[in-house]
Formats: sequence, C-alpha cells, structure tokens
Amino acid sequence: MSHTIAIDCMGGDYGPAVTVPAAFAFLRGHLEAKVMLVGQKAKIEPFLAAGADCAGRYEVVHADDVVAMDESPTSALKNKKKSSMRLALNLVKDGQACGSLSAGNTGALMAMSRFVLKMLPGIDRPAICPVMPTINGRVYMLDLGANVDCTPEHLLQFGIMGAMLAAALDHNEYPRVALLNIGEEEIKGNEVVKEATLLLKASGLNFVGNVEGDGIYQGEADVVVCDGFVGNVALKTSEGLAHMLAHSLKQEFSRSLFSRLAALVALPVLNRFKARFDPRQYNGASLLGLKGLSMKSHGGADAVAFAHALARAYDAASNQVVERISAKLAELRERQQAIEGAAADEQAEKENA
Amino acid sequence: MSHTIAIDCMGGDYGPAVTVPAAFAFLRGHLEAKVMLVGQKAKIEPFLAAGADCAGRYEVVHADDVVAMDESPTSALKNKKKSSMRLALNLVKDGQACGSLSAGNTGALMAMSRFVLKMLPGIDRPAICPVMPTINGRVYMLDLGANVDCTPEHLLQFGIMGAMLAAALDHNEYPRVALLNIGEEEIKGNEVVKEATLLLKASGLNFVGNVEGDGIYQGEADVVVCDGFVGNVALKTSEGLAHMLAHSLKQEFSRSLFSRLAALVALPVLNRFKARFDPRQYNGASLLGLKGLSMKSHGGADAVAFAHALARAYDAASNQVVERISAKLAELRERQQAIEGAAADEQAEKENA
Repeated sequence: MSHTIAIDCMGGDYGPAVTVPAAFAFLRGHLEAKVMLVGQKAKIEPFLAAGADCAGRYEVVHADDVVAMDESPTSALKNKKKSSMRLALNLVKDGQACGSLSAGNTGALMAMSRFVLKMLPGIDRPAICPVMPTINGRVYMLDLGANVDCTPEHLLQFGIMGAMLAAALDHNEYPRVALLNIGEEEIKGNEVVKEATLLLKASGLNFVGNVEGDGIYQGEADVVVCDGFVGNVALKTSEGLAHMLAHSLKQEFSRSLFSRLAALVALPVLNRFKARFDPRQYNGASLLGLKGLSMKSHGGADAVAFAHALARAYDAASNQVVERISAKLAELRERQQAIEGAAADEQAEKENA
Repeated sequence: MSHTIAIDCMGGDYGPAVTVPAAFAFLRGHLEAKVMLVGQKAKIEPFLAAGADCAGRYEVVHADDVVAMDESPTSALKNKKKSSMRLALNLVKDGQACGSLSAGNTGALMAMSRFVLKMLPGIDRPAICPVMPTINGRVYMLDLGANVDCTPEHLLQFGIMGAMLAAALDHNEYPRVALLNIGEEEIKGNEVVKEATLLLKASGLNFVGNVEGDGIYQGEADVVVCDGFVGNVALKTSEGLAHMLAHSLKQEFSRSLFSRLAALVALPVLNRFKARFDPRQYNGASLLGLKGLSMKSHGGADAVAFAHALARAYDAASNQVVERISAKLAELRERQQAIEGAAADEQAEKENA
C-alpha cells in the first residue's frame, strides 16, 4: 500500500503558510509516511526551506488552479479540473496516494470526491464523519451536514461507515453504534428513525439502540448515527454553547482585580482544561462511502490542527477504512441474499406442496 | 383577571416537599399573587406551617389521585380524572386560576392539557417552549420534544406562539424570530424548512431568516423555531456538553494539591460563572397553543427552580400570552382572507371581461 498522503496545499483560510509546515510536522511524527504537496509551486516553495530534514519524503505537484472558498460545487466541478483539490483526489484515484486532505470549500470537495473517486457499491450518498470528545473518550458522529432528508437505508449505511471508521482509527473492532433519537425507548422518534432501528438491529453491527443528545458526550456510544440536518444542528449548537461558556468564563475572570489575580493562580489548571478539549486535536472529518479516502480539515485550521488531520487521514488509510467498509457491505449483501434465497425456497416448496 | 396559579403539588421527583415551599417563596416575591395547592391534603399539610405569613393567599384543593411519572398519557387521561394534575388544569379551564404549573410526567401533562383546555383555533398541535440563556440575554426555542415530523404550517404556528411568549415575558413586542437551519442561506435545509421560510416571511412577524445551531447561544434571535426532534436534540446535546465541561473542570481543579488551592482562590469567580448559567433560573417551559396556560417544570426541580417556574407562569398569564396568540392568529386569518378575497375578485373580473 502507498504510504503517501496527497495534500491540497491551497485550501483553507491560510493556504501553504499552514499546510506546508503542518506537512513537515506530520512527517516528523510519522517516519514511514510521505506526502505530495499539491498546489501552485511559486506559493509553496517559500515554505520548503523549513522542511530540509524531510527531504526525499515529500514531492511538490504543481496545480495551476485553486478552488475558491465560496465557489459553487457545480462551478468547481466544471471549471477547476486543474485545481489543487482535484489533482490531490486524482492522485488517490491513480493509487499514487493512499488518501487526500483538503481544508478547502466543503461542498466542492464533496462533489469532486464523489466525481473522481466514485461511490462504493451499496452506498447511496457519501457522509461527513468528524470525531468529537466525550467524557471518557471520543465519538464518531455522522452525517454532519451533507445529507438532509435521509431514508432509513441511508442511516444504516452511515452506521456501517461510521463503525468501520471507528474500527480503523481506534482499533475498536466492535464499536457501539447508536441512533440519535429523542428518547431511549424504541417507540419514540420519527418514522425514519423507527425504521432505521430495525435495519441496524439486523445489520450484525454492535447496535446499542437509541441515544439522546446528552448521550453523545456521555460516551454512551462510539458511533452516533443521524441525518445531516440533525447532526449539523447538534454540532453547531455544541460549538455555540462552548463558545458562550468560554467567553463568559473569561469575562468573569477579568471582572475585577481580585478575579484577574485568581485567573493568574488558576491559569495552569484552566490551560489543562482547555487543552483537553482543544478542537485542533479533533480536526479531520472523513468523507465516507467513496472508493478512496478523502478527508476534510476545518478551513480555519492552524498548522497544529492541520497536522492532526493529516495524522488522522494517514491512520485511516493505513488501517484500510475503505476496504473495511467495502467488505462489510459485501457481507451484508450476502446475508441479505441468503435471507431472500431462503424465503424464495420456502415459497417454492409451498407452491409445490 | 384571576391572579391565581394552580399548582400540581404532587408532580416531580419530590412532590409537596419542593412544590409547597416554592409556592410560599413565590408568594413572598409577588404580593398580588395567589396560589391553589392541588394534591393530597395529608401530604401537603406538613409543609404549610412554614407559610404562615402567606395565610389567605393560598388554598389547598384536595385531589385523591396522582399521575405516576412513568404512566402512559392514555392511561393518565382515562384513569386519573381526580389527579392533582387534572384538577389543576380544571381550575384554569373554569377561570378560577390564570395558569397552572406541574413538574409531573410531560406526556401526561401534554395530553391532559390538550384535553381539558382545548386547542386554540388555527393551531394544529401544542408545542413546548422553554427559555434558554444566550451570550447577551435569552432565547425562546420551540418545539422541544412534542412534535416530530412537522409541516411548514406547524413551524409557522410555532413562530407565532414563540413570538407572543417572548412579547409577554420580556415585554419585547417585536421579537426576532428565526428558523433553525443548517446554513444561513435560504437555499439550504430540508424541504419543510424551505417552505416554512416562505410562510414566516409572509406572516408579519419580525422574521430574521435562518440561524444555525451556534446562533442560538450567540443571541442572533429571540425566538428559534424548529421541529420537536431537532429541538430536543439541540437541547439535550447542550445539556450533555455542559455536563461534560463542568465535570472536567471539576476534575482538573481537584487533580493535585496545587489545583485544589487554585480552586479555592478561584471559587468566588467560578461560583459567579456557575450562577450566571444556573439552569434553575430557566426552569418553566410553556405548553403553547391551548386556550389556557399550562406550564411544565423540570421533574428534578428544587424549590428555587420551581419558584422560578411559578414566577414565569404568573408573568405569562399576567401578560396574557394566550390572548396574544389568539389575537395574532385572528389577524393572520383576516390577512389570509383578504388575500384570498382579492384573488377571487381578480379572478371574477377576468371571467367577466
């Protein structure tokens, strides 16, 4: 297997100023890894001097074009065939890279990934799956924004993809998969969720039933499945709440001379608290359901965050997330065929009798 | 107007031990108010001595039965006609009380409220609307759990009811109403949300468009409208995250001798921070869309929290939230009829021409 990650160096708010130093930091931590730095050579080169120790482990692949952060997916697909985003995906398709990472335009990345890498048979729509902290570990949640109005079958597919990602990244071969719902009882929730429950129960996954919103952070499951609308609301609401609390904590600690002194004393503790939930270490969401690995970094990522996403992409590829999803889908198809075959046999016997 | 709140004293995890002292605390803060303490006399009486100063402003109304916390709404409706929950609602219906409050079984309260008080004409389903803190104020969010699979018309009705509640409780006559969505652009979101956007735009409410999950806590709107599934997930996810952060902050502050000392120094600041988001002050969710006021307290509420909910119920009733909703619905109906009338006239003219 290739040990190379193709990096769209031009994506994100800071481009090569972040992506290239992050690539070197990643290489220093992963001695068997290589990277391809895809983008405008003239803009990448100024940052290469800092990676002299990584010589021979990176390659610059020139790409003329750049997908703009506000470009429509359709326009990017049609007009940006020579963009860094597109070329990085081509390298995955051609087997020169085992995965790609971009901090660029999410909609365009989704459309291009789908077009270049193609869907796995048995998957209707790709999903975006980030990783999030819990009280005692982490959780994979999908879908986060790409799919609204999902069917029960889509939710089943998300469950399979999320479980295989957890297996690949956390070496957790039997991750607990749960459906996000508004009550733990099976009778609750909307129709789609009720039907998805039946499908997940029959899937052979380690399906643990429903979790409510608070269960996400309580570590009640390793994989939480929901449609893209609900997932996006849950994630963004969490970001908003965390921001409000952090802002207010800062306000309280700067209210008076006494509170500023208290902040000074408490600083090491507060910093440790902050580090524990530092979103940079959770950077790197997987686009799942494709025949190759495409990963998305937050657009505003700094070099630390981008390096975390690179490590995650590399881990997912090394632990063969795509092959795992593909194998699990094949297993389910066989199981389904066996069930249908048995039903047909029974029917035939009845007719003969 | 009656200044009396009917209290289901038996509901919630603690019953009269919480509800009766809370009632007295409420009466002391609202000198023109009265309460009816509904429930089993023998269980209420031991707590009455502490309210000697409130004599003449409360009345005990005996109710034989109690709705169990795990009782099904159907069973409660059928078998608990003499329960404290039911009698409290009857007092509202009969005009002896201006509103009722219960910390009991939510499903049963919803079903009974609907059965006893009846729906307002023009409202299809009642909604649950709590109040939540934002970075610079508060926000009313609905629906929170009762209605999954909503239509665009339901979301419009939620917008109207939430706006009238904000007007009644915050004296904000033109509250900003927003739709919870996964992007601020109008083209985003599922079909229901897209159609609801059109209805809200034409409603005469101060509709400010879409907010994303993070906008809830950023104070981007005074009223946030969503279906019960999404709302429940957003609220519970927030509770889970807040719990995880509080738990971890405590952990960090108790990790070593130094951090415990730092906690001691920082305690006044941390307590002020905690007080700012103390969920007890946000207790009291309104069941809206009914011909009378029914309010729900958190089941685990203590006396402080229950007194907050009582004050909220009293404010909502005093500021005529039900009448406001009713008037706004009538206004919309007239506007709709005028539009339809004009269209019919135009059609008739065309046919005559």
